[in-house]
Amino acid sequence: MHVYSFLQAVRDKRPLVHHITNWVTIFDCAQIVKSFGASPVMAHAPEEAAAMTGIASALVLNMGTLTSELIESMKLSAAAANRKGIPVVFDVCGAGATTFRDEKAMEIINGTRIDIIKGNSSEIARIAGQAVETKGVDAGHVSADLKEIAKALSAKRSCTVVITGAEDIIAGNGKLLLVHNGHPMMASLVGTGCMATSVIGTFVGASPEQIPEAAAAGLACYEIAAEQAVKKSEGPASFKQHLFDCVYKLDEKQVRAMQQVG
Amino acid sequence: MHVYSFLQAVRDKRPLVHHITNWVTIFDCAQIVKSFGASPVMAHAPEEAAAMTGIASALVLNMGTLTSELIESMKLSAAAANRKGIPVVFDVCGAGATTFRDEKAMEIINGTRIDIIKGNSSEIARIAGQAVETKGVDAGHVSADLKEIAKALSAKRSCTVVITGAEDIIAGNGKLLLVHNGHPMMASLVGTGCMATSVIGTFVGASPEQIPEAAAAGLACYEIAAEQAVKKSEGPASFKQHLFDCVYKLDEKQVRAMQQVG
Amino acid sequence: MHVYSFLQAVRDKRPLVHHITNWVTIFDCAQIVKSFGASPVMAHAPEEAAAMTGIASALVLNMGTLTSELIESMKLSAAAANRKGIPVVFDVCGAGATTFRDEKAMEIINGTRIDIIKGNSSEIARIAGQAVETKGVDAGHVSADLKEIAKALSAKRSCTVVITGAEDIIAGNGKLLLVHNGHPMMASLVGTGCMATSVIGTFVGASPEQIPEAAAAGLACYEIAAEQAVKKSEGPASFKQHLFDCVYKLDEKQVRAMQQVG
Repeated sequence: MHVYSFLQAVRDKRPLVHHITNWVTIFDCAQIVKSFGASPVMAHAPEEAAAMTGIASALVLNMGTLTSELIESMKLSAAAANRKGIPVVFDVCGAGATTFRDEKAMEIINGTRIDIIKGNSSEIARIAGQAVETKGVDAGHVSADLKEIAKALSAKRSCTVVITGAEDIIAGNGKLLLVHNGHPMMASLVGTGCMATSVIGTFVGASPEQIPEAAAAGLACYEIAAEQAVKKSEGPASFKQHLFDCVYKLDEKQVRAMQQVG
Repeated sequence: MHVYSFLQAVRDKRPLVHHITNWVTIFDCAQIVKSFGASPVMAHAPEEAAAMTGIASALVLNMGTLTSELIESMKLSAAAANRKGIPVVFDVCGAGATTFRDEKAMEIINGTRIDIIKGNSSEIARIAGQAVETKGVDAGHVSADLKEIAKALSAKRSCTVVITGAEDIIAGNGKLLLVHNGHPMMASLVGTGCMATSVIGTFVGASPEQIPEAAAAGLACYEIAAEQAVKKSEGPASFKQHLFDCVYKLDEKQVRAMQQVG
Repeated sequence: MHVYSFLQAVRDKRPLVHHITNWVTIFDCAQIVKSFGASPVMAHAPEEAAAMTGIASALVLNMGTLTSELIESMKLSAAAANRKGIPVVFDVCGAGATTFRDEKAMEIINGTRIDIIKGNSSEIARIAGQAVETKGVDAGHVSADLKEIAKALSAKRSCTVVITGAEDIIAGNGKLLLVHNGHPMMASLVGTGCMATSVIGTFVGASPEQIPEAAAAGLACYEIAAEQAVKKSEGPASFKQHLFDCVYKLDEKQVRAMQQVG
C-alpha cells in the first residue's frame, strides 16, 4: 500500500476536521490534526454542531467524557454529516465500563450512519456484543479472535472497524488491513488512542473514497512518528513532545522505510 | 514605545486574570498568564463568574467552544467588570464559521462594554459586518484593508480592536499600533491565538490606563519569546515548550533588542 | 517511613483512579496518575459517575472549575465510594475565592464522607472556618498556625487533612506527617496542586489501609521527581516535561536518598 500518498493528500487538501470529543485530550486531538497539516475545529454546542460539521471534511466523535448533552450534539452532527456524505469516525472510548456508556454508544451507532467505529480490543468487543472486563478507558482482556470480531462487526454494520493495539486491525469493504507500527511507550501516554481517532478522521477527510486504506495509512504514519519519537525520549512527556514534532516533519523516505502495513 | 515597562508592570503587580474560555486551550491560556508572572483563574459557573471577576484585574472572554450557558456566564462577568471598571478582552474565536457564533458574539458586544475586541483577520472582518470565508477557527482570506477595518470598528464601538497575524494591528483611542514580531511557526501550534488574548488581558490588567499600548506591548513580548523559541525548536511541540520557557525568562535586554512595535 | 514501598504498591496494583475534576488541568491529572503506573479515568456524567466510581480504587474530586452539575456528580460519586469503602480525596481548589465555592465545598464535606481534604494554606484555612484573603486559586496569606489548623480540622471531621506548600502538612489518625521535598518552580506551573491531589488518590488507592502515610509518601515521590526535574529545566514548560518523565523513571535509590518525610 502506498502509505505516503495518503499523507500527501492530507498536506495538499488540509481538511477541516470537526470534533465532538472529550475534555481530557481535546488539545492533543486538535494538535495532532494540525501537526499533520490539517485544520481541527471543536464546536459542541447543539445550536452549531451540525452547521460546523457542514463545512468540515470529516467528523470525529469521541465519548471519553460523554454527557447526555454531548451525545445529542454528536447525533445532530452525525446526521448533518450523513446528509452531506461527510465521513464519520466514532471512538467508543470506555465502552464496557458502564451501562450508560454502552447504551449511548449504541444509540449513536443505531441512530446514524457511522463510517468507522474505532476502539481498543475490549471496547470493540463490547460494541460487538461480548461481555468484557474493562479498566475504565484502558483495554481489558479479550479472549475472542479480534480479527474475526472486526470482520463480523464490519459486515453487520456495513462500516469500517478499527481495533488499535500492538497490531492495529482495520476491517472494511470486505478487506482486512493490519498495521504493525507503533511502540509500547504509547500506552504510557494519556490520549494516544484519542489522537489515533483524530488521525483517522484527518486521513479519511482527505481521501474519503478509500476509507479502510486511509485509516490504515493514517495509523501507520502516526505510529511511525511514534517509533521515531521514542528513540529521543526519556519518558511519556518527552515522548509526547517528540511525537508531535516527528509527525510534523514526517517525510516520504521515513514512511517508505518504516511502514508495516499489510 | 517602552515595551519592557509594560512587562515590568505585569511582574510587579501580578494581576489576577479571570477567564471564561474554551476547553481546547484552557490550560495554555492559564500557563501563559502564569509564565508572565501573573495569576490566572478560570471560573465559568454562572453562580460565581461575576464574583470571581470582581476580585480580578482583567477579564478574558473567548468563545472557542461556546455554549449558550457559557455565553450567559460571559455576560454576567462582563457586566460585573463593567460595573467595577475592570478591562474586558473578548476573543471572537471562530466568528464567521456559524450563524450561532456570529449571533452570540454580537449579543456580547452589544449587551456589555467590551474594551478590546480581538480576533484574526476573518473573525474581525466578520464582526465588522463583512461576509467572509472561514475555515473553522483558522483565518480565512479577507480582501479589504485590515487597518481600515480595525480603525472603523474601533471608532464605531469606542473600543480597542486587535487583529493578529504576521502584522498585528491594534487600533484604539484614535491611534494605530503595529507589531511585527512573531514567527510563522505560531500557526502550526493550536492555541497561539487564544494565548495572545490571555496575554493582552494580563498586560491590560497591569496597565489599564493605557489599553492599546499595553495590548501592543503584550503581543510584542509574547512574540519576541516566540521568535526565541523557534530557534530551539524542531516542530510545534518543542516550540510550545520553549515558548513558555522563553516568556518566563524574557528580560529587558531581549525586549529592547527585538521589539518591532510602531 | 518507607516511602518507596508505597510507590511499589502503586506500580504493583495499578489502581484505577476515578476523577471528577476541572477542565484546566484534567489532562495533567490523568497523565500524572499514568506516569506513576496507575490508571486514570474521568467520567463526570451524573448517569455514570457513581458506576465508574464503583470499579475504581480511589475517587479524586477537584472543584477547580465547579458547576452545580459537577457538584451533583461529585456527591453521587462520593456516596458510591462511601458505600463501597473506596477512599475519597477532595481538593477544595479555590475555596475562599467566592461564596458559591465555599458553600459547595461545605455541601460535599457535610453530605458525604471525605477521607482526605486537601488544599493550599488559604483554602484549608477557609474550610476550617477562618476568614482568608485569596487570589483566585493561588494561596493567600494565612496568619494562623497551619499545623494546628490541620490537626483541628482532621479531628473535627475524622479525616486526613493535607496542606500543600513548601512544607506539606498531613494530619490524620492523630498523627502529623511533614514532607519537605519539592521546589519553588512548582509554583510557576499551573496544575501542580491538582496533580498533587491525583497523586494522593493514586497512592491511597494502592494502600487504603494507611491513608495519611500513603498521602505523605505520594507527595514525597512526586516532589522528589520535581526536584530532579528542576535540575534539567529552563522554565515551567521544560520543568513540566521532566516532571512527568522523572515520575515515570523514579527508582528506589532516588527515593531513599532524597525523601524528606518526618
